[in-house]
Amino acid sequence: MQVSQLFMPEIAEAIEKGDFESLRAVFEDLHPSDVAELLTHLTPESISRIIRILRAPNGIAVFEQLNIETQTQVLSHLGRHDTVMILEEMSPDDRVDLLQKLSPETVEALLPLMAQAERDDVRKLLQYGENTAGAIMTTEYASLPGSLPVSEALPKLRAIAPDSETIYYVYITDAERKLLGIASLREILVARPTQTIREVMAENVVRVTVDQDQEDVARAFQKYDLLAIPVVDKEGRLVGIVTHDDVLDVMVKEQTEDVQKMGAVEPITEPYFKASFWSLARKRGGWLMFLFLGELFTGTALRHYEETFAHTIALVLFVPLIVSSGGNSGSQSVTLITRALALGEVRMRDAFRVVRRELAMGVVLGIFLGVIGYLRAMMWHSPPSLALTVSVALVAVVVSGTLIGALLPMLFKKMGLDPAIMSSPFVASLVDVVGIVVYFKVAQILIM
Amino acid sequence: MQVSQLFMPEIAEAIEKGDFESLRAVFEDLHPSDVAELLTHLTPESISRIIRILRAPNGIAVFEQLNIETQTQVLSHLGRHDTVMILEEMSPDDRVDLLQKLSPETVEALLPLMAQAERDDVRKLLQYGENTAGAIMTTEYASLPGSLPVSEALPKLRAIAPDSETIYYVYITDAERKLLGIASLREILVARPTQTIREVMAENVVRVTVDQDQEDVARAFQKYDLLAIPVVDKEGRLVGIVTHDDVLDVMVKEQTEDVQKMGAVEPITEPYFKASFWSLARKRGGWLMFLFLGELFTGTALRHYEETFAHTIALVLFVPLIVSSGGNSGSQSVTLITRALALGEVRMRDAFRVVRRELAMGVVLGIFLGVIGYLRAMMWHSPPSLALTVSVALVAVVVSGTLIGALLPMLFKKMGLDPAIMSSPFVASLVDVVGIVVYFKVAQILIM
Repeated sequence: MQVSQLFMPEIAEAIEKGDFESLRAVFEDLHPSDVAELLTHLTPESISRIIRILRAPNGIAVFEQLNIETQTQVLSHLGRHDTVMILEEMSPDDRVDLLQKLSPETVEALLPLMAQAERDDVRKLLQYGENTAGAIMTTEYASLPGSLPVSEALPKLRAIAPDSETIYYVYITDAERKLLGIASLREILVARPTQTIREVMAENVVRVTVDQDQEDVARAFQKYDLLAIPVVDKEGRLVGIVTHDDVLDVMVKEQTEDVQKMGAVEPITEPYFKASFWSLARKRGGWLMFLFLGELFTGTALRHYEETFAHTIALVLFVPLIVSSGGNSGSQSVTLITRALALGEVRMRDAFRVVRRELAMGVVLGIFLGVIGYLRAMMWHSPPSLALTVSVALVAVVVSGTLIGALLPMLFKKMGLDPAIMSSPFVASLVDVVGIVVYFKVAQILIM
Repeated sequence: MQVSQLFMPEIAEAIEKGDFESLRAVFEDLHPSDVAELLTHLTPESISRIIRILRAPNGIAVFEQLNIETQTQVLSHLGRHDTVMILEEMSPDDRVDLLQKLSPETVEALLPLMAQAERDDVRKLLQYGENTAGAIMTTEYASLPGSLPVSEALPKLRAIAPDSETIYYVYITDAERKLLGIASLREILVARPTQTIREVMAENVVRVTVDQDQEDVARAFQKYDLLAIPVVDKEGRLVGIVTHDDVLDVMVKEQTEDVQKMGAVEPITEPYFKASFWSLARKRGGWLMFLFLGELFTGTALRHYEETFAHTIALVLFVPLIVSSGGNSGSQSVTLITRALALGEVRMRDAFRVVRRELAMGVVLGIFLGVIGYLRAMMWHSPPSLALTVSVALVAVVVSGTLIGALLPMLFKKMGLDPAIMSSPFVASLVDVVGIVVYFKVAQILIM
């Protein structure tokens, strides 16, 4: 995997000298993904020159591996003719991803220059909503008639291979393109030559519809160990396939989004340094403000107990400790439950069991922290009533944290919202307010 | 994908009656993954009976789809003979995963009962460390001699198909099993029949070594759009392959771990309800205690400023607000930087750029929150000096948060530790202490 780095000195030299002929020689021995990685160190203009120099199949393969932002920049340095050539040759799913990033005017200017077949394909794929199966599928699947004898299948597949994203799964449809079955190339290979494709195919085909979420597609791949999945329209007609490599990309993208939501950042699709500073500031600022407004209630709660802590000023020393313990235990619960919901390990009907378990967990963890807190307070020579207040409050706050952390994602899911949005900081803010109230209530009872 | 649910009433009835014959009829029409999903609702004993009733290839396929905890429970209800039969028939990678969960004594008792070939295979695979390429690979790859004419390749592949995890990638090795090249079935299919496999194969093969981390394997799949990757030993000899379906499992597992680390939970491999309460309590309690001990320093810091807030008691009202704002901004930075490091978007040499960017971001976000905080303090009729203290402290605390959140993951990576361990709560605890010090320092300057 470090292959590409070995070439770095040569490449740097060739770029320095503008020796694009040597570059081509080097690049043609490399995997397109490695070339794309090397190109990211160059300006869009240099990249566009290299793409043009590389011969057709290779140049396109490299271009497809660039990230979409770089692709659009590179296109802006290419003439109409080269742009249209690249668009026509790209695989349909990558092409649509790119076109969606261009301005509608640019797309409208480019479309008439493209061949009829590709133009129709683009118009069809552009209509599907973002993050749906339709948006990530390709229309270049392999299909064979069910009546074909196995002996004739291989020559047929050889002929359609250049226009198929994969020939390892072959789809069988009726005259109206309704999906009837699927046969893997492996099954075709080991079948008797006299059998027909229909006799070899499996009829019970795992499929998705065009408007299903891309996460459903990823889950199906995972469950059924697929290489590709057929995508059908509402009438059950085969309109495309999603292949395994696109699913990996979807999983990484979704994972990044989930992690960012957990960290209270609105999902950012661009790489860290490519994202514009101000769009990032807006996304981060929005969440921060939201959490800040929630956290303002801690002030409201504290005002309510101003007399209490004015009377026993040492109470203040434990405020951050107590609220953060509730926040941390809540954060653990929200993480576990959100993930378990996403993986289908916990369902809505398990709500009662979840609550019972998190309640018990909160009691155990709360007592554990309560004991440490008690010892610490005594070490600070706090009066026993204060030490007791701290430890009782810790139990109550940790229990509140685990319960709120477990219930909120389930509640949000029930309301049809994404539980991942219940990010740990959000739960922490809520638990902070609850923690303050609990702490001073306990203090009023035990001290005053 | 809801196919399986349609059968639920029939299945429930058959189980009720103990009518395993009808169950078999139903199950044989379903995908093994769907059957495995349905079985999870039954006791291990019922599952073991059904596995035994299903005919060999189907029963094994279903068994392989169960999670490992269920597999071990099911085995304990099967006799030696059935256990050995299942182990012999399982695919080598799934088999080793299972054996690793059994006690060493059980494994030693079972191994002598297995056929020589499988026994050797198990011993070989068991030696690779957890989470390495060696631990997730299978030894059943397809291989052809380089001198073979393409015309003879298909009959050969047909013969080895039953013992190969995939025949879509064919590996070519020399007499010492050193990896020479790879040919896809697609390439073989479209090649001229007179060519030899050596002429068709690609020599520049992306590969991993047995002891490389499974995350490297996943990254290679993603970058090169692979169906399988060859695994070689230190001498470059081919020892196995990792296939695309195993990579999806790796990605989900690693994602769960990352998310749990972010949420301050030690990674939990079992599903939520399967994990034992006390092991979960220990894992959660360990982290909570660690964070709690860190958070104790907020008390130490507050004690240091006891006179300050005893003098201006209203200062206390803003403590949770200010510390949590630092924690939240730090949490955002740590999330973005950790993820960017994991995806390779940010490297160690970018440290200076990262710091500059997060510093600027902290100033912008801090001023934004500072203004809101100022207005809020004025609305509570705080004296202007207090309102000013709050807003100046907010700027300083948010900047500290973004800087600490950006630097710590990079520092940890530099020290060879996993940056994901720098979970948001951990950063938040650290920033809390810093926030208190900053806040009261500002207060001492502006108020006292």
